[in-house]
Amino acid sequence: MDKPHFRHLFSPELREPVFVEGLPGFGNVGKIAARLLLDFVQAKLFAELYSPSLPDYVLVDKNGICRAPRYEFYASSTGKTHFIILTGDAQPSLDDIVAHYGLCGRILDFAQDHGCKFLVTMGGVPMPRPEGKVYVAATSSKLAVEIMEKGAVIYGGGKIMGATGLLLGLAKSRGWQGACLLGATTGLKADREAAFSVFKFLTKMLGTDVEKRSQGKA
Amino acid sequence: MDKPHFRHLFSPELREPVFVEGLPGFGNVGKIAARLLLDFVQAKLFAELYSPSLPDYVLVDKNGICRAPRYEFYASSTGKTHFIILTGDAQPSLDDIVAHYGLCGRILDFAQDHGCKFLVTMGGVPMPRPEGKVYVAATSSKLAVEIMEKGAVIYGGGKIMGATGLLLGLAKSRGWQGACLLGATTGLKADREAAFSVFKFLTKMLGTDVEKRSQGKA
Amino acid sequence: MDKPHFRHLFSPELREPVFVEGLPGFGNVGKIAARLLLDFVQAKLFAELYSPSLPDYVLVDKNGICRAPRYEFYASSTGKTHFIILTGDAQPSLDDIVAHYGLCGRILDFAQDHGCKFLVTMGGVPMPRPEGKVYVAATSSKLAVEIMEKGAVIYGGGKIMGATGLLLGLAKSRGWQGACLLGATTGLKADREAAFSVFKFLTKMLGTDVEKRSQGKA
Amino acid sequence: MDKPHFRHLFSPELREPVFVEGLPGFGNVGKIAARLLLDFVQAKLFAELYSPSLPDYVLVDKNGICRAPRYEFYASSTGKTHFIILTGDAQPSLDDIVAHYGLCGRILDFAQDHGCKFLVTMGGVPMPRPEGKVYVAATSSKLAVEIMEKGAVIYGGGKIMGATGLLLGLAKSRGWQGACLLGATTGLKADREAAFSVFKFLTKMLGTDVEKRSQGKA
Repeated sequence: MDKPHFRHLFSPELREPVFVEGLPGFGNVGKIAARLLLDFVQAKLFAELYSPSLPDYVLVDKNGICRAPRYEFYASSTGKTHFIILTGDAQPSLDDIVAHYGLCGRILDFAQDHGCKFLVTMGGVPMPRPEGKVYVAATSSKLAVEIMEKGAVIYGGGKIMGATGLLLGLAKSRGWQGACLLGATTGLKADREAAFSVFKFLTKMLGTDVEKRSQGKA
Repeated sequence: MDKPHFRHLFSPELREPVFVEGLPGFGNVGKIAARLLLDFVQAKLFAELYSPSLPDYVLVDKNGICRAPRYEFYASSTGKTHFIILTGDAQPSLDDIVAHYGLCGRILDFAQDHGCKFLVTMGGVPMPRPEGKVYVAATSSKLAVEIMEKGAVIYGGGKIMGATGLLLGLAKSRGWQGACLLGATTGLKADREAAFSVFKFLTKMLGTDVEKRSQGKA
Repeated sequence: MDKPHFRHLFSPELREPVFVEGLPGFGNVGKIAARLLLDFVQAKLFAELYSPSLPDYVLVDKNGICRAPRYEFYASSTGKTHFIILTGDAQPSLDDIVAHYGLCGRILDFAQDHGCKFLVTMGGVPMPRPEGKVYVAATSSKLAVEIMEKGAVIYGGGKIMGATGLLLGLAKSRGWQGACLLGATTGLKADREAAFSVFKFLTKMLGTDVEKRSQGKA
Repeated sequence: MDKPHFRHLFSPELREPVFVEGLPGFGNVGKIAARLLLDFVQAKLFAELYSPSLPDYVLVDKNGICRAPRYEFYASSTGKTHFIILTGDAQPSLDDIVAHYGLCGRILDFAQDHGCKFLVTMGGVPMPRPEGKVYVAATSSKLAVEIMEKGAVIYGGGKIMGATGLLLGLAKSRGWQGACLLGATTGLKADREAAFSVFKFLTKMLGTDVEKRSQGKA
């Protein structure tokens, strides 16, 4: 395998889906929040992405069954808002920056082919006292303020590392809109509480604005 | 040299050969087990693989003769089960993940061209008290259980690093079947005992199931 | 994104512009000096360069607005000497040498297409007692001496790391002329004083020699 | 610059030249020995090789003149044995194995185009008590023994790192013959004594065998 390649399981019927990303990272907040969303919107696995920049090991489950590390794409079209949700086993090595850019580009191509124009990336941000806060950065000032008004704190003057940041930055330069939600976490272990705060805030945020956004366009 | 390239020594006549891999790694278990199998089935070197992702040094033998590091493919068609056995001098650097994926892909292409559909990878797994145990992970639950019933312990809920894991994972996604046998080792030095346990288990396992498998298909 | 790509904002009218580079680095001297020059010559942002070898994070400003890291090209045609000024958010990783060569090559292609044949790169050089000194290395002995006579100290027998050095070296092998100005700095923090010394020296140097150079050719 | 590229200064007339390599490395033995040979055979610089895998800095001489790091090829056709001698400023990073293979391949292509079929690579080997010894590894047993009989010690059962090893290994797989001469050195500093031993041995070795070799073929 020299290049990332997709394995398609089925073709979902989606109407302007919101693209949501939650991959392993700080306090595992993004991945856990993505799992909570998956269950909540009854999303189904419809595509897998294998890549030579994911780790070169094989994962073995508790029954001894192995599989290569991958990214997973889930689709949900049951509610008013349709979703493509990305989660996965790992991210490329921090050293392999070029691979990371390439992989994020492929992911956005894929989501765009399915009609996505709006994304939410999710992750954790280290804070000494998390207090259940959710931080936000967005592709425009208007969007950042709208999300802040729903209870998030502006994440000002920093950097957002890895796919959670890079997907947002690359999507912006393609003309997408979107936001990153960061759950405050001490990051000492998998932080289910921070992930739940992000998940809860996401559903609240999408239950209103994004629905309206879709309706306005329709 | 910009790409991996094969040097073919002769073309073996093989009937649905089992592909067995044993490369340098933890406790050198895989490589030693591969050497034991080589001798046992009187396999002959039929191809060499040189790659720009193998180390950039030259090996010198005790007579002062140099050669570049390489992977070696041995063929055996003397017994009921035919074999292609892969061993070698080194693995790509841990950092060079993309190269590792590319090289494992080339190896599976090569084995597939010779009719392989079933593989066994071999390595070591660190344990405080090895006690001669052999652990197994497999491409399917059925196969894992069959091998467990012959005396191996299910390797559950972990990762298998390097070519030993990656070949199995990539082979699975091509529709092959197979297993990884891991010899428990303290890993403090080249562990001939753990390697012998793996070799012995492999011959026992292949002497029955795989023979049957081939017969079933024929 | 697999390759560096430019985003063009407008097409400046430039007459044999001097190419000036100031990127983040030791004591941040180059970047601060570039900012000072930008303001002084009222240069306008006319192009952005995004690259998969820049860091894989997203930058967030104090209002929560995100954007991908980038290089920025500013044009000034208000004074006698026209300028293209390069500054940016970051440099490629020290490990990714091949990417660095590729990116510097692309930058010089871009500048050459706009008529540049002369460049000044700016950076910091660690010194225990900076004393406001500016060091110089150049593409020819004649030019080094000319600049020394204006008050710089010859930077003899060393290396100049990163884009500041590499752009100069690659430009020379294309037949350009130019120099590197290094502000002496303890490098313990962002050194505005050293940056100001470099900026001041640059304007003094270009106010005379380069003006004459342009006149001589016209 | 995305790829290595040659800059040709003149086209030497060479008759089956011996290719000799001496690059920076352990105790700088190889590079110093190459310099000694250059002077001895009055070789002239005829080509330069620039590469994106050489370090991303610029070298500055004592007069403040900069240039990019490079490999240099010198030709000598004054004596009975003609030479192409390779030396240079640096080697690719140890991490960038693929680049190193690619660069060594390009170098051998270049030498082959000029008629080379025999090479001698030179470097240092760490020894607690150097005692002026020169170690040898070769592409064949016959050649190793011939060189041993002239006073070198067989370098048995080890590895030879970097271009010194890799050029020999890759040349062998192209069907060239050749040897590596390693000067024993404590390696604590640039070791002119070890380099002189290697140089002296090389001239002795080439003064007899290689001359004969050329005559035998003519």
